[in-house]
This record gives sequence, structure tokens and C-alpha cells, in this order.
Amino acid sequence: MNEEALLKANEALEAANQAMFTANNVWMLVATVLVFIMHLGFATLEAGFVQRKNVVNILFKNVMIIAIGLLTYYIIGFNLMYPGSDYAGEFFGFAGFGLSNPEGAAGLIEYADAGYSYWTDFIFQGMFAATCCTIVSGAVAERIKLVPFLIFCFLFVTISYPITGMWKWGAGWLDAAGFYDFAGSTIVHSVGGWGALAGIILLGARKGKYTSKGIRPIPGHSMPLAAMGVFLLWFGWFGFNGGSVLSADAGLVSLVFVTTALAAAAGAIGSFVVSFGMFKSFDLSMALNGILGGLVGITAGADLMGPGEAIIVGFIAGCIIPLSVVFFDKLKLDDPVGATSVHLVCGIWGTLAVGLFGSMAGIGQLMIQLKGIAAIGVFTFLFAFIVFFLLKKSVGIRVPEEEEVAGLDIAEHGSPAYVGVNQAAFSTAKG
Amino acid sequence: MNEEALLKANEALEAANQAMFTANNVWMLVATVLVFIMHLGFATLEAGFVQRKNVVNILFKNVMIIAIGLLTYYIIGFNLMYPGSDYAGEFFGFAGFGLSNPEGAAGLIEYADAGYSYWTDFIFQGMFAATCCTIVSGAVAERIKLVPFLIFCFLFVTISYPITGMWKWGAGWLDAAGFYDFAGSTIVHSVGGWGALAGIILLGARKGKYTSKGIRPIPGHSMPLAAMGVFLLWFGWFGFNGGSVLSADAGLVSLVFVTTALAAAAGAIGSFVVSFGMFKSFDLSMALNGILGGLVGITAGADLMGPGEAIIVGFIAGCIIPLSVVFFDKLKLDDPVGATSVHLVCGIWGTLAVGLFGSMAGIGQLMIQLKGIAAIGVFTFLFAFIVFFLLKKSVGIRVPEEEEVAGLDIAEHGSPAYVGVNQAAFSTAKG
Amino acid sequence: MNEEALLKANEALEAANQAMFTANNVWMLVATVLVFIMHLGFATLEAGFVQRKNVVNILFKNVMIIAIGLLTYYIIGFNLMYPGSDYAGEFFGFAGFGLSNPEGAAGLIEYADAGYSYWTDFIFQGMFAATCCTIVSGAVAERIKLVPFLIFCFLFVTISYPITGMWKWGAGWLDAAGFYDFAGSTIVHSVGGWGALAGIILLGARKGKYTSKGIRPIPGHSMPLAAMGVFLLWFGWFGFNGGSVLSADAGLVSLVFVTTALAAAAGAIGSFVVSFGMFKSFDLSMALNGILGGLVGITAGADLMGPGEAIIVGFIAGCIIPLSVVFFDKLKLDDPVGATSVHLVCGIWGTLAVGLFGSMAGIGQLMIQLKGIAAIGVFTFLFAFIVFFLLKKSVGIRVPEEEEVAGLDIAEHGSPAYVGVNQAAFSTAKG
Repeated sequence: MNEEALLKANEALEAANQAMFTANNVWMLVATVLVFIMHLGFATLEAGFVQRKNVVNILFKNVMIIAIGLLTYYIIGFNLMYPGSDYAGEFFGFAGFGLSNPEGAAGLIEYADAGYSYWTDFIFQGMFAATCCTIVSGAVAERIKLVPFLIFCFLFVTISYPITGMWKWGAGWLDAAGFYDFAGSTIVHSVGGWGALAGIILLGARKGKYTSKGIRPIPGHSMPLAAMGVFLLWFGWFGFNGGSVLSADAGLVSLVFVTTALAAAAGAIGSFVVSFGMFKSFDLSMALNGILGGLVGITAGADLMGPGEAIIVGFIAGCIIPLSVVFFDKLKLDDPVGATSVHLVCGIWGTLAVGLFGSMAGIGQLMIQLKGIAAIGVFTFLFAFIVFFLLKKSVGIRVPEEEEVAGLDIAEHGSPAYVGVNQAAFSTAKG
Repeated sequence: MNEEALLKANEALEAANQAMFTANNVWMLVATVLVFIMHLGFATLEAGFVQRKNVVNILFKNVMIIAIGLLTYYIIGFNLMYPGSDYAGEFFGFAGFGLSNPEGAAGLIEYADAGYSYWTDFIFQGMFAATCCTIVSGAVAERIKLVPFLIFCFLFVTISYPITGMWKWGAGWLDAAGFYDFAGSTIVHSVGGWGALAGIILLGARKGKYTSKGIRPIPGHSMPLAAMGVFLLWFGWFGFNGGSVLSADAGLVSLVFVTTALAAAAGAIGSFVVSFGMFKSFDLSMALNGILGGLVGITAGADLMGPGEAIIVGFIAGCIIPLSVVFFDKLKLDDPVGATSVHLVCGIWGTLAVGLFGSMAGIGQLMIQLKGIAAIGVFTFLFAFIVFFLLKKSVGIRVPEEEEVAGLDIAEHGSPAYVGVNQAAFSTAKG
Repeated sequence: MNEEALLKANEALEAANQAMFTANNVWMLVATVLVFIMHLGFATLEAGFVQRKNVVNILFKNVMIIAIGLLTYYIIGFNLMYPGSDYAGEFFGFAGFGLSNPEGAAGLIEYADAGYSYWTDFIFQGMFAATCCTIVSGAVAERIKLVPFLIFCFLFVTISYPITGMWKWGAGWLDAAGFYDFAGSTIVHSVGGWGALAGIILLGARKGKYTSKGIRPIPGHSMPLAAMGVFLLWFGWFGFNGGSVLSADAGLVSLVFVTTALAAAAGAIGSFVVSFGMFKSFDLSMALNGILGGLVGITAGADLMGPGEAIIVGFIAGCIIPLSVVFFDKLKLDDPVGATSVHLVCGIWGTLAVGLFGSMAGIGQLMIQLKGIAAIGVFTFLFAFIVFFLLKKSVGIRVPEEEEVAGLDIAEHGSPAYVGVNQAAFSTAKG
């Protein structure tokens, strides 16, 4: 009976480990679908914030970005970002095309230590990859040519994002240096923001935005779509941050839920307060971007903060939003959806906040955070600038003026977003 | 080897318990995100049911409500609603400001018995809290001033909701008396409904709704938005009810899924049948509110009913909807989205149904249910009435007539919800 | 101590099994809510693709379909589709009305082997059932009478779908013959597609679609709604395919996530490439239907393919879409949303693909797949054709011409989908 007991105990232990592995994997898959639906969030947010005549175009771009992003991440990106110890250098590594695993169900390697399967690892990371391009698409909306934009996205998501991502998440030099970025304030959001900045510098502002009489606001065509986008992004962010725990660890995942939710809420309040002070009106688009700012801000340190600290980080991010939007407008950098303010500025803020609040705070950490922000920022901005520049000098990146006035939906897609109501005579780009 | 077997067996048992704890916690977090997205459901439902000129306003309120609700629930609400045995009285208890736990990941207390973490407990409950205000926002839409409304919400969600919630869910006197309300037909929905009722009594009807020539319908501006809201609310309700099991117990959670889904379906049919009988047309908004009525109706006893009983409860709730809508209109109580019919009337019905159907049915239980409904109703209605009354007498709660005619979007927010199409000359509030 | 160790080991094993059972059940419930939200995806997709004047009608149908589908699946369908070994014949079996289980929580039979509860089994399958009718509703939109359509749905979902479903999933003759259809390319999607085909043949085209001057495109009224629908369907498909593993098996579910996502992405690219070649424009609705085609295509073999094979299957499905849409138009079979191309043609393709790619590929399997497609196709098409035919000859299935021109929203529901903007003079059905 001795032996029987030991055998039974071993069997039980294996069953328990298998159950824990399964629970972890279930959570990671749930997080995956939550991150997936963020792409609908981006699509509706950006569609809501552009003019009625450019809606099909922005939807088309968001559809293509997720398709291209997933496919190229399978072909190249995943093995560039997570080359594994055999292939990784400090700055670059590549484990070969396709998934290095044999194909098919039989090829499954269970990442018993990691707590989820190989395929889960790929698909969770794959959902993140396209995000960086989606951020760009909003900023360059209403005037960029479709095909050059898709070429940019292809290169950005296939090469630039995985390389800088590898520096930290793929065990590269920034990881060794102690840089911390939990779920990607820098690695995902500011990367998208730098790409957006490069794009809007080279593209120029939309016609009629900055006139001799001052800045003319070009309001988005549908606030319900924009609001829907923000709620869906917040919803998905529970997977974006919660899944970045990389296990279903009850304490950590639930802490991340709390910090994520409170930072978003505080971001709305921060943006509300500052924008009311500045504009004396209750600005919905500012409140919406305040939520996103709070979410981007907490992303780097969502697992390091308590709820009180998360509120402070999110509140400050929210306060930054209206200031940043006005600042970019002063520089005549035209960003129809505020992507640079949300993802670049709040991404930087969130990464710095790791050195200021929470369990890793300290001047040394703050310096390391600055180093990571700078290194990834310089690489990404240069990469994006060079690609956009080459595209500009070759095929061109901006649509002709008459297309911009008429709207990209008719010019590039041959069909309007809405049929059956009178278009208003009013069209901001005409003036 | 004896000792080895015992050690191994103990290790296995601990691992198995940890796996179960993790699986429970994963489910509670999934339920949390499902309840979260109900706020998008409320936002789109209410936006769809109001006029085109008041859409930004209703979206802004819904954004602010979730932000205020989460923050104040962290600061005060949670410790007021769940004071814990050291602090609880029968009617009131308070465990102090903020979360009583030390902040940060290290501060996690694993609720091994409850089956999920402390943070999970907070964030799941926090998502519920704001719901009661969201219910009010729909009923008072199109004529309430923004700032007084937000002050009301702040007080309602911070003080009123947690106190009556504590009576049952925080182990207060109604819990001791045997009152049963599984997921909140009374504690959440009718509480919101009583607040809504107080608001619409003190506000008065929208201009042009009740005229000397009879009741003028003021149709919502977008049925796709309204339908989207109902589907999203149904979707989220699987978390609202399913999460209220407070564990991932396979039998109970899946039973709750079945009763919730069937009651919603039966609610649609009930409302369809009765409204067709009354109006001789296939009324989409009635069918939509019938689903919501079915959902509210099953919420108090979703874990006590079999599928057949759930269908009866939901069907009756659906039948109630058109009758109740007509009834409130007869009383000239103007509720643009039907929130009082859905949440108050069906909330009462669902709470009574616990005494009529399912495993707790009985005349004694029915009496206790009545007592709970009455106690919470009186407290909540008085609280809401007094707050709205004081606001009315001080800063005023109703927008000026010209603002109501022009629409709150321009008057309070300075921007329309939609740009780029001609507004119709027709505007119901003008007549 | 010997005995103590053995007892403890047994306790641990039972706890571990319980934890695994719970994790499985959690996943199946998550999959259930994901499949549920596909009904919102269908509703918004179809609403977006119809004209502005028929939006309330299509929303109403989608609301009623899910309600009818769930209720009849409870009353009859589930026991017809899964009669169990005591009742099943090869072609037909019925285990009685209602759920054969005693009602109420006490009646739970834990399907310990299946890895989830009896109620979970019912509700997951119940969410699938209504899908086949939703597919039909898009194809017959804009001209079918409401009540006959609902009668068709009632019969289709209550009788036809469960019977053919039983042939494979209920252990009937096709299952015995070796037919493979993982998550329903044939059993769900092509079944819906055959019903749609029967409907559009008997209904005829919308007025003004096929004229002496050629085919007149009737564009959908809202591309944001359509795009939202596709993203929501893709989101839900992770539950549709991922839940069809019928456990939370980490390797299989995550493989299914990967094949599902990559096939959808490849479908977008395939449709993009072919439709650009055909029409020389970037057609959003083709790209959207390409995603759906890829999803339908991978559904039959999502667990059998590696990622590379999934990409090929999805890409081909995407290429099929524009060709199929043009083909049906050539035949003057008018399908406003492209449901026959997406669900019927790609459903057939996906079922065949099981014989061409992945771990079951082979000429023998291909023949068996053909047999299954043909058998289910013939039965379903005949059933649907006869029902529609009898309805046509008795109550009629097509609205009067003036109703079609005016729009079904006003004619059948007495209210427009949108209020407060000028309708355009332009209306395609008038010409």
C-alpha cells in the first residue's frame, strides 16, 4: 500500500499541475480575445473622429492592418521578437521563418513553466503586434494614400516593432539593463506614437486646419462611434494588461485589473478638469482621450502600483491630454484623433512613472526608464521617418488636393460610408 | 517512503486547491469585464433612445458615471457595502477610507474560502456600483443639467447604494431576515429605478411630450444604437448573474447562464405579444425593452429556478413592459428610455418571483421579499428625492427651455454628435 | 500513516479532477458568451448592408431569431440534435420535450468525462442553433414579409437544423461514415446558406436590382455598422471554433485560435487581391466578407490544420468571395449581404478542405466530405424550399411593391431607424 499511496500522490500532483496549466491557458486565451477586440475599438474610435467622407478609408485600413499584422507576425515577427536563447543577440536575433515548431496539433510544445501553450504564446503576442500600426493610422488619417500607408505598416510591424520589442521582452539589452515596461507603454504605445509623429511631420496638416485666421477645429463625424471605441478599448485593456501577467496568477491579475480600471477612471476626471479649465465646456472627446491616456499611462507599471498610485498616474495622464493636444496644434502637427497625445506622450509618462511610483520607484530606475524611452524612441522614429521619407520621394504619400476635398471614400474606394441621407453642404476641408 | 507519500499527497492537495482557486478567480475576472462592458451597453442604448441633439450629453454622462463610480467605490463605497464582521452593524458599517488592505501586490490577501482574491472582490463589486446611476441617467435624459446630475450620481453611488446593498450583501438586517436577491433585481436594478422615479417626478416631462392633444411620442434617434445596447447588456448580464455565484462552480454558473438566457428570450416574446396586441405593430423598442425586462426579472432568482420557471418569469416580465410604459405615460412621468419600467417595475417583479417560483418559493418568503423591496425602496426613493429636491431648490436641475429646444449637445458641450449631414427641420421638442 | 497518505492522495486527486472540470467549464461558458455576441455581429453586419429604410426590420428579425432559437432549442431542438444513445437512430432520434434533466440546480448531472456541466452543454449548443436562421435573414432582407419569415425560422431551427446536426454531432450516420466537420462549416454555415438560397430563389430579387440596363448595385446604408459586425463575428468565432474543442485542452484550443485568426486574416488578403483585380478599387465590403469567408472556410478543420495550411484555406476562401458574389449576381440571385457566398460557398469549400489539407487529408476523406455536404445540402435545401414554397402559396412571402419602395421600417414597424436627419431623395429601389 505504500507504493500505491505514492503512485496515487504523484498522479494527483500531475493532475493538479495539469489543471493549473489549463486554468492559466484559459486566462491567456481570454486575454487574447480581449486584445483582439481592441482592433474594433481603434476602428470605431478613429472612424468616429474623422470626417464623414473618410470613414470607409479608415475602416479599410484597420481591417488590413490586423490582417497584415497577424500574417507577418506569423511569418517573421514572432521569431524576431522572441528569438529564444539559442538565437538572441543583445540587439537582434531571429529564429527563422514561420513558427519554429512543427505544424499541426502534434507539434504542440507545452510551456509547462510559462503556464500556457506555444500557440497561445504566439497568438497573444500576435494580437499586440498590429496595435502599433493602428495607432499610426489614426494620426495620418484623412490625407494619406492607401497603398504607401499599407507598405509602411508592413515594414513597421514586421521589422521595427519586433526588434525594439526584443530589446526588452525578448531578453535583449534593455532587459539586461533593468528597463521595466510591464505591458508596453513604451514597447507598444510610444512605438506607435513615434511612427505617428514621423508620419504627420512628413505628411503635413489637413488642408484648412491651420489657416491665417488661426486653428480651425475639424470635428469628428460621429461621437457615438468614438465613445464606443473608447469603451471597447478599455474593455480590451483588461486583456492587454491582465494578460501581460503571462499567467492567471490570481493576486497579480486582479491587482492589474484594479490599477487599470482606476487609472482609466482617474484619466477621465483629470482630462475633464483640465479641459474644463481651458475651454469652459464639457468636452466629450477630451474625456474619452483622458480615459485612453490613463490606460496608456498605467500600462508600464500596472503590476507595480497600488490603487492609490494608479489613480495618481492615471489622473496626471488625463491632465496631460488637453495640454498635449493644444501643444501639438501649436506646432501645427495635425493629428485628427489625438494619437500622439494619447500613445506617445502618455506612453512616455507611464514609462517614467515606473521610476516615480510603485514598488520599483527610485532615481536609478528613473534613469534606466529614460534610457529605454530614448533608445526605443530614436530607433523607431528614425525607422518610421526613413520609410515614410522614401515612400514620399518615390510613390508619394499624400493624396491629391481634390481627393482630400472630395474625401478618400469616393476617391480611393468608390463608395461612401453612408447612403440615403443628404450630405451637408458644409465640409471643413473646402474652405 | 511513508513520509514521502504523505508529503507528496499534501503537496498535490495544495496544488489542486491552488488550481481551483485560480480557476475561480479567472471566472470572476471574466465576469468583471462582462459587467464592465454593460456600461457601453447602457451608453449606446440610452444614446439610441434619445434625440439626435442630446447624444453627446448622454454619452458624456455615461463616461463620467463609470469614472466617478469606480473612484468613489474605491474611496468609500466598498468599505461601506462590505464593512466586514468587525465593523458591520445591522444597518450601517464602515471599514475606513480606501482599501483596508495594504497597497501593492504584496498586500494581497487570498480569500481562499471565497475562492478569489481581495482585488477581484473589489473590482467585481465596483463594476456593479456605477450601474445604479446609469439607470437614472436614461430616465432623466434630455432635460437635466449636467453638473447637478453628476452631484446626484456622486452621492447616490457613494452613500445610498452601498448602504442598502449592505443590508443584504454586506450581512445586514435584511440578510438576517432571509431576504433573497441573488444578483440584484432589487439591490441594483430597482435601486436605480427608484432614483430614476424621484428624478423624473421632480424634473417634469420633456417639453412637448404631454400636450393638450394627447401624448406625443418622441422617438429615439438611432435604433441600431439602441439594439446594440441591448445585445451588449445581455452579453454582460452573463457576467452580472454568472459572476454573482461568486465562484466558478460549474453546476451553478451554467444553470444561471441557462436561466438568464431563457428569461431574456422569453421577455422578448412576452413584450412582442403584448405590444402587438396593444399597438398592432411590430415594435422594436418594446422587444428590446422586453429582453431587458426578462433579464432584470430573472436576476433575483437566477440560481433558484429551472429553465421552465425562468421562461415564465421572463415572459411575465416581458408582458409587463408595454403595460408599464403606457402606465407611466398615463401618469405623465416621462422616461425617454423606459428605465423605470425595465429596472424598477421588473426589478420588483423579479424579487417577488423568488417567492413564487423556484426552490425558495413560499408565502413566507414572499412576505420577506416584499419587506425587502419596501425597505430598500423607501430608503432609496427618499434619499434620491431629497438630494434632487435640494439640488432643484439650490442650483436648479432643469436646463432652460431654449437649451432643451436647441439640444443639450450644443448648449452644454458646444459640439454636435454628428457632423456632415443636414439636420432635419423636424424637431419634436419644438412644437 | 499508510492509510492517511492514501486517503490524502485520493482527496488530492479528486480535488485536482474537480479543478480541471471547473477550468473546462469556465472555458466552455466563455465560449458560450462569445458565440452569443455573434448575434450582435450578424445584426450589425446585416443592418449595415441593407438600405436605410429597412434597418428596423432587420434588427427586429435578429432579435426575434435569437429569442425563438433559444426557446425552441430548449423545448425540442437540443433533444433532437443530441438524443443520446438510448434514443438515437441513424437518421433521427428524440429524447423528449424540455430538458430531460430534472429542473433546478439539484438536477445537475456533471458530465465528468465531457468536462463540463449538463447546462453548459445545452447553452453552448443553444447559442449555435439560432445562427442558421440569422444567415438566412441577411439574404432575404429588404423584401420578405416578417411573419412568414419568423414561421420559417421557427421550423428551420426547430426541425431541420437539429436533424442534420444529429447526423454528425449527435452520433448519427454521417458520423459513423467518417464525415468530419469540426465546428460546423457544413452543419451550421452551409445549412444557413442552403436556407438562404431557397429563400432568394422563391422571393426573387429586390425591385430595381437587375434591370434591362444591367445590374444596379444597391449599397448598404452604413459601412461602420457592417465593419463592426465583422469584427464582432471574428471575436465570437474564437468561441465558436475554440469552444468546439468541447474542453479547455490547452494545446487544441490554442491551435484553433491560431488557425482561426490566420485564416480570417488570409481571407481578407485573398478577397482584397481578387476584388482589386476585378474592380480596380479597394472594396471594403469585399474585404469584410473575405474575413468571414476565411472564418467559415477554416471552421470544418480548424483543429486539423497547422498555421500554414490555415492561411492557404483562408486565402482561397477569400479569393472565392468576389467571384461568388459576381456569380450569384449573374444568376440574378439577389443576396443583399452576400450570405450565400460567405456561408454556403465557403462552407462547402471549408468542408472539402478537410480532405485536402491537414491531418485527415486524403482522397477517401474527400469523398466522405462530399457525401456529407451533399446529404445535408439536399435535405436542408428541400426542407427550406418546401417551407418557403408553402408559405408563398398560402400567406405570401413578399411584401407589396409599395411597401418595398417605402421601406419595411415604416410599412411593417411604423417607425424609422433614424430620426432627425433629412432622408435623401435618392432611393435605389424607386427607379
